[in-house]
Amino acid sequence: MCYDLGVIEGKPHDECGVFGIFDVNNYDVSSITYYGLYALQHRGQESAGIAVSNGGAIIYHKDMGLVNEVFNSHMLEHLKGSIAIGHVRYSTTGASLRENAQPMVARYMKGQLAIAHNGNLVNAGELRTELEKQGTLFQTSIDSEVIANMLAREFILDRPIEKSIEELSNKLKGSYALLVMTNDKLIGMRDPHGFRPLSIAKLGDSYILASETCAIDAIGAEFVRDVQPGEIVVLDKEGITSIQISVKVNQSMCVFEYIYFARPDSIMNGLSVYESRKMAGRTLAMESPVDADLVVGVPDSGLSAAIGYSEQSGIPFDQGLMKNRYTGRTFIQPEQAKREIGVRIKLNAMKSVIEGKKIILVEDSIVRGTTIRWIINILKQAGAKEIHMRVGSPPYKYPCHFGIDVPSSKQLVASTKEVEEIREIIGSDSLAYLSKEGLLETVKQTGCGFCTACFDKCYPVEVPEEGDKMKFEKCARC
Amino acid sequence: MCYDLGVIEGKPHDECGVFGIFDVNNYDVSSITYYGLYALQHRGQESAGIAVSNGGAIIYHKDMGLVNEVFNSHMLEHLKGSIAIGHVRYSTTGASLRENAQPMVARYMKGQLAIAHNGNLVNAGELRTELEKQGTLFQTSIDSEVIANMLAREFILDRPIEKSIEELSNKLKGSYALLVMTNDKLIGMRDPHGFRPLSIAKLGDSYILASETCAIDAIGAEFVRDVQPGEIVVLDKEGITSIQISVKVNQSMCVFEYIYFARPDSIMNGLSVYESRKMAGRTLAMESPVDADLVVGVPDSGLSAAIGYSEQSGIPFDQGLMKNRYTGRTFIQPEQAKREIGVRIKLNAMKSVIEGKKIILVEDSIVRGTTIRWIINILKQAGAKEIHMRVGSPPYKYPCHFGIDVPSSKQLVASTKEVEEIREIIGSDSLAYLSKEGLLETVKQTGCGFCTACFDKCYPVEVPEEGDKMKFEKCARC
Amino acid sequence: MCYDLGVIEGKPHDECGVFGIFDVNNYDVSSITYYGLYALQHRGQESAGIAVSNGGAIIYHKDMGLVNEVFNSHMLEHLKGSIAIGHVRYSTTGASLRENAQPMVARYMKGQLAIAHNGNLVNAGELRTELEKQGTLFQTSIDSEVIANMLAREFILDRPIEKSIEELSNKLKGSYALLVMTNDKLIGMRDPHGFRPLSIAKLGDSYILASETCAIDAIGAEFVRDVQPGEIVVLDKEGITSIQISVKVNQSMCVFEYIYFARPDSIMNGLSVYESRKMAGRTLAMESPVDADLVVGVPDSGLSAAIGYSEQSGIPFDQGLMKNRYTGRTFIQPEQAKREIGVRIKLNAMKSVIEGKKIILVEDSIVRGTTIRWIINILKQAGAKEIHMRVGSPPYKYPCHFGIDVPSSKQLVASTKEVEEIREIIGSDSLAYLSKEGLLETVKQTGCGFCTACFDKCYPVEVPEEGDKMKFEKCARC
Amino acid sequence: MCYDLGVIEGKPHDECGVFGIFDVNNYDVSSITYYGLYALQHRGQESAGIAVSNGGAIIYHKDMGLVNEVFNSHMLEHLKGSIAIGHVRYSTTGASLRENAQPMVARYMKGQLAIAHNGNLVNAGELRTELEKQGTLFQTSIDSEVIANMLAREFILDRPIEKSIEELSNKLKGSYALLVMTNDKLIGMRDPHGFRPLSIAKLGDSYILASETCAIDAIGAEFVRDVQPGEIVVLDKEGITSIQISVKVNQSMCVFEYIYFARPDSIMNGLSVYESRKMAGRTLAMESPVDADLVVGVPDSGLSAAIGYSEQSGIPFDQGLMKNRYTGRTFIQPEQAKREIGVRIKLNAMKSVIEGKKIILVEDSIVRGTTIRWIINILKQAGAKEIHMRVGSPPYKYPCHFGIDVPSSKQLVASTKEVEEIREIIGSDSLAYLSKEGLLETVKQTGCGFCTACFDKCYPVEVPEEGDKMKFEKCARC
Repeated sequence: MCYDLGVIEGKPHDECGVFGIFDVNNYDVSSITYYGLYALQHRGQESAGIAVSNGGAIIYHKDMGLVNEVFNSHMLEHLKGSIAIGHVRYSTTGASLRENAQPMVARYMKGQLAIAHNGNLVNAGELRTELEKQGTLFQTSIDSEVIANMLAREFILDRPIEKSIEELSNKLKGSYALLVMTNDKLIGMRDPHGFRPLSIAKLGDSYILASETCAIDAIGAEFVRDVQPGEIVVLDKEGITSIQISVKVNQSMCVFEYIYFARPDSIMNGLSVYESRKMAGRTLAMESPVDADLVVGVPDSGLSAAIGYSEQSGIPFDQGLMKNRYTGRTFIQPEQAKREIGVRIKLNAMKSVIEGKKIILVEDSIVRGTTIRWIINILKQAGAKEIHMRVGSPPYKYPCHFGIDVPSSKQLVASTKEVEEIREIIGSDSLAYLSKEGLLETVKQTGCGFCTACFDKCYPVEVPEEGDKMKFEKCARC
Repeated sequence: MCYDLGVIEGKPHDECGVFGIFDVNNYDVSSITYYGLYALQHRGQESAGIAVSNGGAIIYHKDMGLVNEVFNSHMLEHLKGSIAIGHVRYSTTGASLRENAQPMVARYMKGQLAIAHNGNLVNAGELRTELEKQGTLFQTSIDSEVIANMLAREFILDRPIEKSIEELSNKLKGSYALLVMTNDKLIGMRDPHGFRPLSIAKLGDSYILASETCAIDAIGAEFVRDVQPGEIVVLDKEGITSIQISVKVNQSMCVFEYIYFARPDSIMNGLSVYESRKMAGRTLAMESPVDADLVVGVPDSGLSAAIGYSEQSGIPFDQGLMKNRYTGRTFIQPEQAKREIGVRIKLNAMKSVIEGKKIILVEDSIVRGTTIRWIINILKQAGAKEIHMRVGSPPYKYPCHFGIDVPSSKQLVASTKEVEEIREIIGSDSLAYLSKEGLLETVKQTGCGFCTACFDKCYPVEVPEEGDKMKFEKCARC
Repeated sequence: MCYDLGVIEGKPHDECGVFGIFDVNNYDVSSITYYGLYALQHRGQESAGIAVSNGGAIIYHKDMGLVNEVFNSHMLEHLKGSIAIGHVRYSTTGASLRENAQPMVARYMKGQLAIAHNGNLVNAGELRTELEKQGTLFQTSIDSEVIANMLAREFILDRPIEKSIEELSNKLKGSYALLVMTNDKLIGMRDPHGFRPLSIAKLGDSYILASETCAIDAIGAEFVRDVQPGEIVVLDKEGITSIQISVKVNQSMCVFEYIYFARPDSIMNGLSVYESRKMAGRTLAMESPVDADLVVGVPDSGLSAAIGYSEQSGIPFDQGLMKNRYTGRTFIQPEQAKREIGVRIKLNAMKSVIEGKKIILVEDSIVRGTTIRWIINILKQAGAKEIHMRVGSPPYKYPCHFGIDVPSSKQLVASTKEVEEIREIIGSDSLAYLSKEGLLETVKQTGCGFCTACFDKCYPVEVPEEGDKMKFEKCARC
Repeated sequence: MCYDLGVIEGKPHDECGVFGIFDVNNYDVSSITYYGLYALQHRGQESAGIAVSNGGAIIYHKDMGLVNEVFNSHMLEHLKGSIAIGHVRYSTTGASLRENAQPMVARYMKGQLAIAHNGNLVNAGELRTELEKQGTLFQTSIDSEVIANMLAREFILDRPIEKSIEELSNKLKGSYALLVMTNDKLIGMRDPHGFRPLSIAKLGDSYILASETCAIDAIGAEFVRDVQPGEIVVLDKEGITSIQISVKVNQSMCVFEYIYFARPDSIMNGLSVYESRKMAGRTLAMESPVDADLVVGVPDSGLSAAIGYSEQSGIPFDQGLMKNRYTGRTFIQPEQAKREIGVRIKLNAMKSVIEGKKIILVEDSIVRGTTIRWIINILKQAGAKEIHMRVGSPPYKYPCHFGIDVPSSKQLVASTKEVEEIREIIGSDSLAYLSKEGLLETVKQTGCGFCTACFDKCYPVEVPEEGDKMKFEKCARC
């Protein structure tokens, strides 16, 4: 068994990060995209790719691996051009194929196009079937290939590209923060619900599109604004053009971006992700206070909320768990996996900090419960007197259909267990979750609507029955 | 610069070899295909791939490199199934992309299909344009993707697969020895002209399709017969079915398969390739006799004709040139490339054999003339008194449009130079080519018609103007 | 240029971590050593190696790279045995050779031996010269080869192995936490000054030796005690034997292990590294208070001291800088290196936290000053009103000769500049270092003596002039 | 199982090839050495290495693999200098370790030295033991490390390097064609018996030393003369100096160099290897004539003798077996190994040539008999009427102790079987070997003495009992 220990096992995985640049300053677009993707690495560790248009042709490189494994300086030097898009991807194991790496690049009647997609179409299967009925082939199992085919069919009609993109958006259901590169344009679009984030920035006079502002900061660019739900942004030599799709739906930004996925140093809808997490901790402290000596966060995901809890409660924050900084892919032997070695080589309990103490342990969310059970176990072994578990989000009960890879419902501990049962399973002395109201309070200042389906099953878009998703992913590759 | 010295520089390259098996004996189909491709390695050294159908799904592995570089035992073990097709490929540098490796595997409305193609469609651009007009995307620059798209469009119609294949064959112009694998069938077909070879064999009760009989011998199978020009062979659980396409054209098998491409131990149309080459040598001896001490063949391509020349003329054959057995990919520094090091590290002159002798030097063909000039030079340096060049085929003057990668006309020395000029360029004391009549005599017993367009410009199918071919290969990859 | 961004540039590097196990429980010794090294990865990222004795023979694997890059499950399965030692290494670039990876394994008259060494011999050159005069060859440029040769010369004498080791220790000058494995024994030793740490633990009935207790925790073993300065510990089938070298010198443990090198979750001499760092922060708050809104630590090195500073001063601690969790080896183009991109892609300023605030920025130490200058710059760009730099150790002025790789004196900013000058260079509003007295206070409870030569030039052992060290490292390898 | 099919299984393997250059013309010494080794690849396919001295330091690169796998242009560019030595190696499986690759490079009192050795010391164990008694360590299991240690011990004495080398040669027993490179000299030496070949050449004013003249031809250099048995050649800025070791023994050049090891295009002792092989064929025709239709050689090893046999007997030579040109490392599944697939994918019978014919099949030697049995089998399957096996050397009965890796006596078919028994095993209609007298006749014109111990057990140097050789090779590496 081979685990990437950079991510705590059992956590949901965001499926993608995207980055694009339309350059008018003779920047080295592939290097900039490389650093941008490097900053978005937390959004996908399975594959990485960059496609570049030099006006005449689109060239690209993509492969399985982390950004710094897939690219070297030699490759970037070959990727010369004035427009670039990049992609990092996480995916379910079954479809973890080299073919599925993005950007997807294809040739159609009027030239080439490249697509980088973050999100998940709930009607991908339907759209695919429709295309297949017309004789379309599919060489991958990614939604982007469906989108590319639909785009090509729009683009061959004699109407403005913006119109085509708008037509496309009327057909796509689900979540998409999408970058499309043609030979001479860079187009960004967010689905009308705005599930996934996408921001605009400027570097000199050149425009940048990126999943998160941390990528904008990394390359030293200046944040301009978020792409709006249902907005199409077209970047070309004429500058920037914005089109608002007429479809009117309620915004339903993924609230889990704030809870866990996004980097804390990113800002979405004007709200610092870090501040929202601290606020979650503070609200949690108000909703579920407990008498204790110390607030400890699970590194790194629970630290922000722990600091917030500490600030609100006045109970000191300290580092009761220490993380090994070197936690890339490693393997664990089956018999060891059963024991807590997977946690031990990643986290260590700080005996001097926690011995004899009543601990408030803060984590952003609990998915399967396995990891947190192990963590509580090593804290107890190290002498913690009491452990009061506090979770910065409501019980995670339902699968996501909008771009997040979560275990099936069966594996979500909260889908079948009550809070008290979960407490027993994980072995803490108390357990409290943030209320949904409390959660929404943390993101209230954004003025946005949010998707909270993983907590309340209120899917903003009709979704297929569980199990359907895997259907067209059978085309495996050894 | 990096050269594959296994092939003498400047030789035309065959673009592909194909191998397929429909197994009913529980053989290990991927291993058998591996050994089959290994025997066909001379037909393509750039990429290799195997796709296997286990009834439910088609899985595959393909990559750049030689068969034994692309596959290891671990991979073959994963490629379990009862039908397999494999492919080795050579291609022009411009389109030397990982994406272009075959077999091409895709999903369409009714399942999956995999395609392995040897040949070249002269109307690929046209067909592609037609498909593009309907919104079709292309992710590679290979003809096989065009074929796959056309197949999918036929297959979705409600008619027998054989009918679909026949319809397809009416639309394809050019050369194709084609293997198509669906989830439960293996189909082989040769274009009506029969440009490229394809043979049927049996291993136990299982059927094999292979570009050359040497692959059949390598796996210990029994040759059954050649697939006929314009024949479609369908292998499935019912056994073997043959369909003859109604289109009637004259057969025009590629004569260069006999001259150079095929392995000498292969048998095509009932004629041993080796015997045809020896016959070329014998005919050459009759057409262009010369007084000399020794017949020397350029290893390995000219050896068979040299032995034939010796037999006919009574002048002794000997190994006047010795080849380094280890000549994989290597690199040569630019300044050294100018000198004859490329030849020297591959071939050495046998001073003791040739010193003071009048040599008849036999080669199968001359393309650019560069390599043979160097060879003659090292023979003279080693003390050859006279060198009489004899070539086992007519002057190579025109490009091939049916699956062979040759330099452009400009680089074909015979396209602009007369024989005497070429003799001067290569530095031999005399030079004679086999006549076209003599050549056709060597393959007469097959009873086939042949394409000799590279010698006489008589293309059996209308071909595009030179330069057109490259048009849709711009989509490069670093 | 290729940087490992896991470590902030310009930081001193510890040269090694060692781990060993003498197994009597049929554990999988190579896997245990793998996890042990994984926990010690912070002590060396250049090469990794494991040697295993199965009684009859010592087998090993070592290579350049991180522990999880050098080993896979296949390799570990081959490394079967009952004794194992492992090593991770950092080194100066000049000697960054595959040959220099450890453990060093060699055959001598009575069998084999393997050596894993953390530290630096100040008389290595001298000892090497002496050996060379007797005709000894050296195939690497590491001290361990000198030690191995001396050991072999001791071992061939007819006296107990313990006596030999003691003799050896009389000749070695400098720092060494050393593991020696023979075919049937595992020996650990610390130099009489005890520069580098080494601890003993038990896993079941099997003994473990490890550079730090974090490795003991990672494998779930139980800490027994530290190896004492000048102590030799011999593990074999008879159990554990301890020998105290008679040489009497003052203990001089490297204080930088507490300041920066060791993982915060390790315990040395009974003192938690984390607690010592927090104490440094507290002392700093007392020595150099300042009126401010927020205490921010440079992640991860300055966090512990920042928390301590916050506790003492009552000024809130917050995460004003966020670190990219994915910071493996990457490359930076020369022109970008000049700008702050190296810092930007690793750290981001938290605008929402710091904007308009007076910041106390805490770091464990300042070496060149370049990185901290960039960090202060991005904090100011993000709106920090004032930045008061506080450093958890005294000014770093002198090179280390005991196993730490530091820039030459010229590059140590404090070696030539006064505090006020440094403040100007780094651009902070104030700057204060922890006093040496304050530092010693943080480790006082250990009761140990410490080496503080990097601050006060009081080398506990006579050291060569600067520049000498590189002399025998000229044997480079491409 | 993974076989290198470039060499017929069961053939003895030469253990090494060496190449060196002392440059005074500003050639690119590493590239020249690369091409030289490329030409010597047949002498060792396991590892390759090049060491270069730039006056100040010796740098090197070596690894497991073929020359073109171990080196690329980037590496060669880094290996700048004015002296270079290179090595290719074959070895027994047990010691097939990266550490054992040559050249061996080490530092000793007066500088560095690099050693490339072809041959085998029969007293290596003894010399090693003696050195070990003095405390010497060994990090590899190759003789070269013994030689390097002895050299270092000589070099530290205050006498001319030539004297030291001479002293060394008095102590070494067995075979060695040895290149030693110091910081400013290149030394070549052959053992007094002259077992292994070594030639001198000039390229411009620069001197070359190479195992075979084919390497000299490959780089376009001019052959000067062979190094004499017992001669030491020192190349430095003063030019070339020759020293003849006083030890007087009878020359005993390895006759198998002529029979199989050397490339046919090499010239040794003034005799073309190819001519000696043809002469073997001719003599065989005289000694063991047989009425037949065709002479067929086993490619490539039996071709030369087959041509000789044909010339002498007047029976036509033809290519009855065809070899796959692409036969690098491949793997064969255990169950397939039992069948003749190992032969089939390498060789194919030419049915059209041999059907119904009485064949004289010529091979250079028979070692285990397994491969030839399979070859005879496929020839019979292809319709050969009779097969008369003729072997160009006497029955191979005894192991080699001078640098050739042969199967143990037990596996040598002729060590326990009579000719008639062997004929039955291999399945031919008749079988005849060349007589020892006949063999010596083929090399008579060289005027040399020869070692024929593998045929007659007359070892020119006392050798250890079988089995001893493996003793110090236990230090394995996974």
